Amino acid sequence: MIPGEFDLLRAIGILGSRPEGVAVGPGDDTAVLDLPACRLLFTADAVVEGVHFLRDRTDPADLGHKVVAVNVSDVAAMGGTPVAFTLTLTVPPDLDLEWLRAFHGGLSAAARAYGCALAGGDTTAGPAVVLSAALLGTGPEAGPVLRSGARPGDDIYVSGSPGESAAGLERVLSGRRDDDPVWQRLVRRHQRPEARLALGRSLGASGRVTAMIDLSDGLLQDLGHVLSASGAGADLELAKVPVSADLRSAMGLPRARELALVGGEDYELLFTAPPEARAAVAAAARASGTAVHRIGRIAAGPGLRLWEGGREAPLPAVRGYEHFCDGRPG
Amino acid sequence: MIPGEFDLLRAIGILGSRPEGVAVGPGDDTAVLDLPACRLLFTADAVVEGVHFLRDRTDPADLGHKVVAVNVSDVAAMGGTPVAFTLTLTVPPDLDLEWLRAFHGGLSAAARAYGCALAGGDTTAGPAVVLSAALLGTGPEAGPVLRSGARPGDDIYVSGSPGESAAGLERVLSGRRDDDPVWQRLVRRHQRPEARLALGRSLGASGRVTAMIDLSDGLLQDLGHVLSASGAGADLELAKVPVSADLRSAMGLPRARELALVGGEDYELLFTAPPEARAAVAAAARASGTAVHRIGRIAAGPGLRLWEGGREAPLPAVRGYEHFCDGRPG
Repeated sequence: MIPGEFDLLRAIGILGSRPEGVAVGPGDDTAVLDLPACRLLFTADAVVEGVHFLRDRTDPADLGHKVVAVNVSDVAAMGGTPVAFTLTLTVPPDLDLEWLRAFHGGLSAAARAYGCALAGGDTTAGPAVVLSAALLGTGPEAGPVLRSGARPGDDIYVSGSPGESAAGLERVLSGRRDDDPVWQRLVRRHQRPEARLALGRSLGASGRVTAMIDLSDGLLQDLGHVLSASGAGADLELAKVPVSADLRSAMGLPRARELALVGGEDYELLFTAPPEARAAVAAAARASGTAVHRIGRIAAGPGLRLWEGGREAPLPAVRGYEHFCDGRPG
Repeated sequence: MIPGEFDLLRAIGILGSRPEGVAVGPGDDTAVLDLPACRLLFTADAVVEGVHFLRDRTDPADLGHKVVAVNVSDVAAMGGTPVAFTLTLTVPPDLDLEWLRAFHGGLSAAARAYGCALAGGDTTAGPAVVLSAALLGTGPEAGPVLRSGARPGDDIYVSGSPGESAAGLERVLSGRRDDDPVWQRLVRRHQRPEARLALGRSLGASGRVTAMIDLSDGLLQDLGHVLSASGAGADLELAKVPVSADLRSAMGLPRARELALVGGEDYELLFTAPPEARAAVAAAARASGTAVHRIGRIAAGPGLRLWEGGREAPLPAVRGYEHFCDGRPG
């Protein structure tokens, strides 16, 4: 039995906290924020049971982490810094209080790790767990990095190791439990994604990045969003698209490559910058401790082409995640 | 069949709009806001199918209106001005596109009416309709009106006609369809609540109001939140609690009075101010065209007492809405 809304907020430790920068926190009609800057980034993302996760196979602390991380990832993709977020928490009335405590523990730890504060929100009953967070951030001095700034000749980069989250999701859906550390790591990449905040901030601060997006729908689909917003095309070198050793050993090379191109929810950053900014990009990557890979180039004409050994390779038939297909690749 | 997320956003007209004050609107990783003030109000509220509405008895345009209005109401209760909001829209995959268009029509009309802009958000599939909005606003010059400022001797006021929304909800749940204009108006009060924005702003601008809250849980329960935050008690004059002629004719006086005290989702404003501010309160009410009623006084000791003809009257057994009881009075 779930207690009433205020008892619930108290029980899971939300009421009574007042984080730095938040003049009035949860418990009044709205939060009151005192921010050092007036140009603000504002984003919202929901995490939905049965679409983004299966409750019986997901640690509630991971969910608390994830709903913060996916929003922080959007601010990172603007080159910005997260400040404060609201959360509307819809939960079935029979949900265990321990579940809520663990969820809030993961949420709070992620908020601390990313340097942002829970400023308020709302708790209601509902037929399934729906977590919706809205995050405010401040932009980099040089201005937020939009999707629309990619120019012909710009290099295309991707951070880290795309495709691992989708491999982890496949394992979760298979229902198998693994002692294998490779599979454990891939599953963790799916269930506890990290936003590339340090990299995004460094790239934003450099002022040299022309366009940026976080990978939630898959590399090809998210690159497509950049191309469409920028009115440009792209040529990608298949051999340069990073495929981690874990992903390759778990899935085999052909499927690993495909997942690197179309798997969703990696929250890596994809960005573009002119060739003369290569040193600046490398410096930002070093400063943030994140690997970045130059995978292709923006083209003047429309369309997205894959190249392998000097020859055009076919695009995967499936281009990325569509949440209206149940949020599964397909 | 619902189209993909981007097609959906385009179909219902969200992509491509760029409202004033929103430097970058929907379609990038985050919105970018250029605000004239740095002290911000930040709130979020969800509207959930089966808890806050029944889909087969609710006009989707009304829902679009409601998810904006309930958030604007929180900003109004701080004396503030709404600026921009995000929306995460969770909908069953089989939902009709016409439903979504009508929903977005109601949402847009409410945004225009309250002077705020849809800045971004997220659309996902889910087992039921869950609408979650987060709203940013600016506070009044004199500072936001918190719940915690009520002082012994302050007058207690409520705007408009509380209880009408709960009466309307009872009629909706009864399944009857009415030609009777009285019932039609009560049902409309429930399905299309208005935020008392003009009144809240006028009261905030006056700098004379000590505490304020909007009525979502019911007059007694929301007054209880003010008392608890302010560390005070209250004496209410039952005869002064407004009961509209429509509410009385529809429900009879005893039930009408009870609903005025415990019915939820009226989005009237309850506020306190010292007796020497009566002229200022009357002026704010006149300026906003909203009736306000002086219904009691803040007491030094704890507790909430009802008075009728000089004698203490019993408090209703049910004190207000609890959303974990399905969001119904009970």
